[in-house]
Amino acid sequence: MICDNLTVTAQGRLIFAGRDARELLTRYGSPLYVMDEARIRHNLRLYVDTLREAFGDSAMALYASKACSFREMYRLAAAEGAGVDVVSAGEAYTAYTAGFPMDRVYFHGNNKTDEEIALAMDWGVGTFVVDGAEELAVIDAEAGRRGITQRVMLRITPGIDTHTYEAVATGQVDSKFGSAIETGQAEQLVGQCLGYPHLTLCGFHCHVGSQVFDSDTFLRSSDIMLAFIAAMRHRYGYLAAELDLGGGYGVRYREDDPVIDIPQNIRQVAAHVKAACDRLGLPLPAIRMEPGRSIVADAGMTLYTVGAVKRIPGYKNYVSVDGGMGDNPRYALYQAPYTVVCPEKMHEPADMVCDLVGKCCESGDILQPKVSLPSTLTRGDLVAVLTTGAYNYSMASNYNRNPRLPVVMVSPDGDRVVVRRESLEDLVRNDV
Amino acid sequence: MICDNLTVTAQGRLIFAGRDARELLTRYGSPLYVMDEARIRHNLRLYVDTLREAFGDSAMALYASKACSFREMYRLAAAEGAGVDVVSAGEAYTAYTAGFPMDRVYFHGNNKTDEEIALAMDWGVGTFVVDGAEELAVIDAEAGRRGITQRVMLRITPGIDTHTYEAVATGQVDSKFGSAIETGQAEQLVGQCLGYPHLTLCGFHCHVGSQVFDSDTFLRSSDIMLAFIAAMRHRYGYLAAELDLGGGYGVRYREDDPVIDIPQNIRQVAAHVKAACDRLGLPLPAIRMEPGRSIVADAGMTLYTVGAVKRIPGYKNYVSVDGGMGDNPRYALYQAPYTVVCPEKMHEPADMVCDLVGKCCESGDILQPKVSLPSTLTRGDLVAVLTTGAYNYSMASNYNRNPRLPVVMVSPDGDRVVVRRESLEDLVRNDV
Repeated sequence: MICDNLTVTAQGRLIFAGRDARELLTRYGSPLYVMDEARIRHNLRLYVDTLREAFGDSAMALYASKACSFREMYRLAAAEGAGVDVVSAGEAYTAYTAGFPMDRVYFHGNNKTDEEIALAMDWGVGTFVVDGAEELAVIDAEAGRRGITQRVMLRITPGIDTHTYEAVATGQVDSKFGSAIETGQAEQLVGQCLGYPHLTLCGFHCHVGSQVFDSDTFLRSSDIMLAFIAAMRHRYGYLAAELDLGGGYGVRYREDDPVIDIPQNIRQVAAHVKAACDRLGLPLPAIRMEPGRSIVADAGMTLYTVGAVKRIPGYKNYVSVDGGMGDNPRYALYQAPYTVVCPEKMHEPADMVCDLVGKCCESGDILQPKVSLPSTLTRGDLVAVLTTGAYNYSMASNYNRNPRLPVVMVSPDGDRVVVRRESLEDLVRNDV
Repeated sequence: MICDNLTVTAQGRLIFAGRDARELLTRYGSPLYVMDEARIRHNLRLYVDTLREAFGDSAMALYASKACSFREMYRLAAAEGAGVDVVSAGEAYTAYTAGFPMDRVYFHGNNKTDEEIALAMDWGVGTFVVDGAEELAVIDAEAGRRGITQRVMLRITPGIDTHTYEAVATGQVDSKFGSAIETGQAEQLVGQCLGYPHLTLCGFHCHVGSQVFDSDTFLRSSDIMLAFIAAMRHRYGYLAAELDLGGGYGVRYREDDPVIDIPQNIRQVAAHVKAACDRLGLPLPAIRMEPGRSIVADAGMTLYTVGAVKRIPGYKNYVSVDGGMGDNPRYALYQAPYTVVCPEKMHEPADMVCDLVGKCCESGDILQPKVSLPSTLTRGDLVAVLTTGAYNYSMASNYNRNPRLPVVMVSPDGDRVVVRRESLEDLVRNDV
C-alpha cells in the first residue's frame, strides 16, 4: 500500500493504523476523516530530529498548520518539540487555546490585517514573518503602543520557479508573497526594518513551492538566501541569526509518485549550507523548515458510504458517495490525484472504471475521475480515499449545506474524536 | 454599471441599493457580503409572475437555494410566492426552521442518504426529485414505514449538451444526474416508480446546465421532455401532471457578457410548449422552473479592505484584500470572471493592471487576475467585487481558519444582518 499504516487482511479488509475501516465507520458515522496519531508523531519527529542532528540544537521544525489545523494538531506538535507556522488569527487562536507555547509560533501571510496583528500580540506570538512594507509599519506601531519589541523575519523571494503547478509555486519573482531579491525590494525592506525602533529583525524566510521531489530545490534556495545574508551584512552590517528555508517536500498520492528520502535530503542540504557558510565567512544560522503537507497527508484517510452506482451503457459509470467537494475540494481545484480503494473488497478485481463523485448538486463535484473499483459495488458499501490528511479538513466547506465531517484520531492509546461532526444546528447557528 | 442597483455619485463614490459602500463597511466590518433585498424580491417576482402569466396558475417558480442558502432567503422566497429546490438535509432544515411552507419544497440531489430522506419526511418536504433506482426503493420503504404516500418526480436526462463549461453542464447523457432517455434507463425508472405502493409519481424533471444565454435550450429540452411524457403515456398509460424544466438562465458578471430577456424567453418557451402539447395531444402540464443564480447573483456584492499593494517592477502588481478564495472560491475553481471596482475612487483612472488576490497562504488565492484599478490604491482603501450573490456565501470555507463573512441585507425598510459574522470561538467550537 501507499503508506505503511495501511494493511489488508487475508479476508480482503482494509486496516488503517490497526483499525478495521468498517468498525471506525460504524462507531463514528459516515462520512469520516480518520487520522493516525502515531504517523503524525513519526512525521513530526522525523523533521525535529533530523534538523537538530544535521544543523545543531538551534534548528527548529515548524509545522505549517494550514495543512490541517485543529487544537489537537498543535498539542501533538508541542509534544514532539516542533514550533508552528500559522497564517491567520484563526490559526493562532486555535494554537493559543490549545495551550501551544506561543513563543514557538511564526505568523505568516501576505496580508495580515491590523486586527490580526494586534490579536497575535495579545496572545504572545513569537515571530511575525513579514511580507512587505505596509505590514512592517503596522507591526512597529502596534509594538510601540504596547511598549514592546517584536521579533520579525522578512519573507524574501529568492526567484526560483520550481516548475510545480502554478497555484502552489511561490518562490518565483512575480509571486504574491515576499519581497524579491532581484528587484532590489528585498534589500530595501531590510533597510526599512532595521530603522524601526520596536522591531528586532531575527532573519529571513523563503518558501519556493509545494510538492517538491527533486533534491536540489533547497540547495538552490539556500545558496541564494545565504548570499543574501552575506550581502545584507556587507550593506547594513546586519547579520541574520535565523534562516527559514520554508517547506514543500512532496507527498505521494499515488503508487507511481516519486519517492523522496527526506532525512537524507535534509542532511544533504545541511552539508551544502555549512560549506556555503564557510565559503562566505558566515556563522551557521539557526535553521527553520516548515513541513505541512508531509506531516499530515499520509496520516489521513477519508471514509465514505456509497449511495448510488450509475452505469450509463455506452457512456460511463458513476459511483456516488455521501461526501464530495465539500470535504475534499482538491480535485475540483487542482485536478489533484488520489488513490481510491474499497475497504471491504480489497481482494476483489477492480473491474469497473468509474468517476468517484460526491453528493453535491454540481457536475464538477468529482473526488476522482476514472478510478477502477470492483463492479460489485453497491449502496451501503465503503469507499476510502487515501492520503487525505492535508488540505481536506482545512479546506472543507458547507457547500450545499452539508455538515462538515468529524476527525477521529486513531491512537495506540485509544481512538478519540478530535473534531466533532457538525450538526444541522451548527449550519444555521449564525442565521438570523 | 452592470446592474441598476449600482450608481456612482458626483464625488465618485459607489452606491449599492441606495447605500454608500464605505458606510456599510464602517457599520458592519470588513470583509462583508452585502445583498439587496429589493433586487432579490424583484428577481423572484419576475419568475413567479411570468411563469403564471405564460403557463397559467398551476405554474410555480422554485428558487434553487443552493445558490445562496440561509434562513432569510427562504422567508423572501415564501413572501414572493415561490417554492424552493433544496439539495440536502441542511438546506431543507434551513427552510424548515425559517418557517417555509414545506409542501412547496422540492428535494433534489444525485445521492440523498437514507438519513436525509427520513429527515426530509419528518419535516414534511413536499416532493422528492428522484435521481435513480436505489433512491426510489429507499423512499418507498421509508414512506411505507410511516404509512404515507410520498410525492416524487423523476430526474430525466434529456441528452442535451449546452456547450457551457463542463463543471456546470448537466443535461448530457453521461451526466452524474438523472436517468437518460437515450439509454432506455429513464423509461425503465418510470416503470419501477409506478410499481411502488407508497409513491405518487407527479411528473418529470430535467436540468440542462448553467449560464444559459441562448434562446433555444429550453425549447429543445421541453420538446424532448414532452415527447417523453407522450411516450410514457403510450407505454404505461401514465400521464405526467408536472414538468420541471430546471434552471440555468445566465447572469452577467461583466459588461461584455450577453444580455438575456428572461420574461421574453419564458413567454417564447410557453408558446412552444403549448404548441407541442397540442401536437402531441397532451394537456398542458403544471410547469416548474428553478432559477437560482439569476435570483441572487446581481443582488450581491462583496466589500473588502486593501491590505498590501505590491508592485514588482518588470513583473506584475498585486492588490491584496482581507478576504479571498475562502469567501469566493469561484475564480480558483472555474476561472470565473467578475467585475472589480474601488467604491471610493470610481472617477479615478483605472491605470494599474494587477491581480486582485486574497490573504490566503496559497498562490492560487486569486479573486480576479489582470484587473485595472486606480494606481493610488493603498492599505485601507475599499475594493468591491460585484455580482457575488450566487455561490459565494454558499461555497465559503474556513480555509486558513479565516472566519466566514456576515451577510447584510440592505432594504428600503432598513438594513439588517441576516447571517452573523463568524467569531474566533466559532472556529474552534467543534475542536476537542
